[in-house]
Amino acid sequence: MNKQLILAKRPIGLPDKSTWTIEENAIPEINEGEILVKQHYISLDPAMRGWLNDSRSYIEPVAIGEVMRAASIGEVIESKNHPKYKVGDFVSGWGGVQQYSSSDGSGYYAVDPNLAPLPTYIGTLGMPGMTAYFGILQVGKIKEGETVVVSGAAGAVGSLVGQIAKIKGCKVVGIAGGPDKCKYLKDDLGFDATIDYKNEDLKIALKQTCPEGVDVYFDNVGGEILDTVLTRIRMNARIVICGAISQYNNTTPVKGPGNYLSLLVNRGTMQGMVVFDYASQYKEAMIEMSKWLKEGKLKSREDVHEGIENFYDTFLRLFSGEKLGKLVLKVKE
Amino acid sequence: MNKQLILAKRPIGLPDKSTWTIEENAIPEINEGEILVKQHYISLDPAMRGWLNDSRSYIEPVAIGEVMRAASIGEVIESKNHPKYKVGDFVSGWGGVQQYSSSDGSGYYAVDPNLAPLPTYIGTLGMPGMTAYFGILQVGKIKEGETVVVSGAAGAVGSLVGQIAKIKGCKVVGIAGGPDKCKYLKDDLGFDATIDYKNEDLKIALKQTCPEGVDVYFDNVGGEILDTVLTRIRMNARIVICGAISQYNNTTPVKGPGNYLSLLVNRGTMQGMVVFDYASQYKEAMIEMSKWLKEGKLKSREDVHEGIENFYDTFLRLFSGEKLGKLVLKVKE
Repeated sequence: MNKQLILAKRPIGLPDKSTWTIEENAIPEINEGEILVKQHYISLDPAMRGWLNDSRSYIEPVAIGEVMRAASIGEVIESKNHPKYKVGDFVSGWGGVQQYSSSDGSGYYAVDPNLAPLPTYIGTLGMPGMTAYFGILQVGKIKEGETVVVSGAAGAVGSLVGQIAKIKGCKVVGIAGGPDKCKYLKDDLGFDATIDYKNEDLKIALKQTCPEGVDVYFDNVGGEILDTVLTRIRMNARIVICGAISQYNNTTPVKGPGNYLSLLVNRGTMQGMVVFDYASQYKEAMIEMSKWLKEGKLKSREDVHEGIENFYDTFLRLFSGEKLGKLVLKVKE
Repeated sequence: MNKQLILAKRPIGLPDKSTWTIEENAIPEINEGEILVKQHYISLDPAMRGWLNDSRSYIEPVAIGEVMRAASIGEVIESKNHPKYKVGDFVSGWGGVQQYSSSDGSGYYAVDPNLAPLPTYIGTLGMPGMTAYFGILQVGKIKEGETVVVSGAAGAVGSLVGQIAKIKGCKVVGIAGGPDKCKYLKDDLGFDATIDYKNEDLKIALKQTCPEGVDVYFDNVGGEILDTVLTRIRMNARIVICGAISQYNNTTPVKGPGNYLSLLVNRGTMQGMVVFDYASQYKEAMIEMSKWLKEGKLKSREDVHEGIENFYDTFLRLFSGEKLGKLVLKVKE
């Protein structure tokens, strides 16, 4: 049987448990040219919250009754003459939150379990890694010696953004919630400074850690933090809008950045990004990121939980902040 | 005697009449290497409101007790061996709101009253013209065939933005308040469409006039209009933040654009600009703008009022919307 997580209804605010149901259905029969994948790891990302809303966005919403969309990693266990994948291959793609997925292979790509642990392919070498890489380099356009601030800094994307900026010779300040995360960023990942927004006054801390102001701000959270960083940007600053996790479960309108006129005063740029636009360059990025991983310049950390039946509790950690690094669901045998 | 408008106190919200006082002081004695200018026209611009605030911005605030800062046009009536200007020359510079100004000539440049009427040099060929030119071309990066929306469209900057975008082959929609302004934009300036935000539903009107969405939005007003346009931007849209006249007299915090996440969905860019950054290129821009004026492709319109004692009432027109084109104060004989 195939355990699947099905979207049951559209949530308002923070999803409750009845948002999804778990079904056990037959393992799909595959057709000529298709593969059947036994899933090993499923990616949990803040973006998933957006896919639940029935509104115009960069991707279609997940339909009611459909398997919950998710990136995943698995092993091909059946192939009906698929031109690219044979039994035993490991692949990454949009397998969804389920134990088995079938596909004609579109959107899938092969991964090598000998080069990196499987979860890394949905973390540092997957969507979060690509987001960090293209966001900070091509949208943020960081230059050596600049001051880079990143929010959600202990998260999957944020922790990579900061490390890449360090590799490129920037001064990096991470904003995260709680002393454990801040310690991790400084001691393990080599961030120059951190701000614990839950226990520090962000405005004062930004002044202290970025006395000359902020050249590049990579925003994963939106809300008050974005608004406060805007008051500290330098001339020609770039703000990368990658996400707004503080606003995803809002039941009231999104809080816009009231200090946006700082963009005028400081000739700043605020630019939105979606990682899919860089698909044609993923390969080069993965080669460079793998090299950094091997050299120990980049550290990959996953927070692995187990079992599709635990999806809901694990999903909530995206928003409660109770996680460190990339949140991953391991599919039980 | 020299009639001068002096900043008496910092206003809160919309300035009241006691914000400035009028003084009659002696015409300044000039030193070696200086010029004395008899002012003919004084520029009134929304940016003046910002210069009254005692806060960090792109330019120092006007000090209490100082002559109110303003761009102006005048005639050199005395020159003590100034290396560049002699009696009879016409010059433009930061002469302030007064009848006579003295200067060592820094920041001044010569203008030719035979090439264009004097007020044009503080309008289409002055700061508003340069703002429109560099804002829409270098920040907005308009391309032929794109849809351009401009707010404050009947104002000094907005009316030029729209005309330049038309010259460059764009489809131009102007947002302005009232049927007279809209008629002027369509009939006199050749805008493709207009939206009277005081009498139309902006959201519906944007859908009708820009069915494929907005490629470039040039924002002079901020507030609700910016927020609504954000819901209609196309992929890779550019938003030029030139001003936020709806927010300048706020006594409550500035309203941030709650729909800013549309930048993410549509990979949009929101960029602030200050015209002074383009000073090294003013000359080329003035040559091109003059050519367009001569060819009749660009229409210049000034709303001229007379007398320094009428500064306050005229200034209010910037915010009440009771003006068409560039607001200018003519200095009485």
